[in-house]
Amino acid sequence: MTLNASCLFCRIIKGEIPSYKVFESSKVYAFLDINPLSEGHTLIIPKYHGAKVHEIPDEYLTDIIPAAKKIALALGATPDDTFQYNLLQNNGTLAHQVVQHVHFHVIPKPTETEGLGVGWPQKPTDFDALKKTHEELVKKIEAL
Amino acid sequence: MTLNASCLFCRIIKGEIPSYKVFESSKVYAFLDINPLSEGHTLIIPKYHGAKVHEIPDEYLTDIIPAAKKIALALGATPDDTFQYNLLQNNGTLAHQVVQHVHFHVIPKPTETEGLGVGWPQKPTDFDALKKTHEELVKKIEAL
Ligand SMILES: [Zn+2]
Ligand SMILES: [Zn+2]
Repeated sequence: MTLNASCLFCRIIKGEIPSYKVFESSKVYAFLDINPLSEGHTLIIPKYHGAKVHEIPDEYLTDIIPAAKKIALALGATPDDTFQYNLLQNNGTLAHQVVQHVHFHVIPKPTETEGLGVGWPQKPTDFDALKKTHEELVKKIEAL
Repeated sequence: MTLNASCLFCRIIKGEIPSYKVFESSKVYAFLDINPLSEGHTLIIPKYHGAKVHEIPDEYLTDIIPAAKKIALALGATPDDTFQYNLLQNNGTLAHQVVQHVHFHVIPKPTETEGLGVGWPQKPTDFDALKKTHEELVKKIEAL
């Protein structure tokens, strides 16, 4: 664990600030959002301080989605569409990040108006642009 | 791998339908969205067919966020706010899911109008409601 003494979420992990904890493993901590978008809105955070997901070591990231799955099941998820939800993680102010410690939202979507509002300004398919982006991205991933 | 012969994304994994693949591990497959919300919009899918994240075995979920991190780094992520992005996964029609095979979006947020639009209909803090939700959720998680 690498925590930051002045970070709200690090202090929650350490128990210095109370939280409605719902789950904990050696690598992640999950608790209710106190300003939920819908009932059951939960945050999952790595036990490692960093603002953006790309700053966190992989070993602290592998438990995140299995934890989200566990929480979804506890919230009532079944294979049908009865329980719907979004998983969201924001990196950067423009991308709607407020607290500077990586957090994954599990947000139930019970109705059109509750839960996450999703805006989808989709671009038309442009194969030339895709081909160019693809070539650059593959090169960069190979160089990582 | 447990794939479905009639699923678009399973067919992409099998190579029956072409895709702009950017990354692949034994458990996940990542490729460009051909109707991007912003340049570099990438999808990461488990190599296991299922519509919702809670239907996928944990072993197919652990690679997802490390893969997202790799893609973010290749797209230009640094510790500052220069490169911003959202990770999103939708479960259910109301939650904006279209293809019925779990997919995680890596969506760059270069400007206010490009990338994911985030609506945040936040509820005020209600400690009684939180306490009730917390008690129920903890019981259900312990029973999983
Ligand atoms: Zn922190
Ligand atoms: Zn499939």
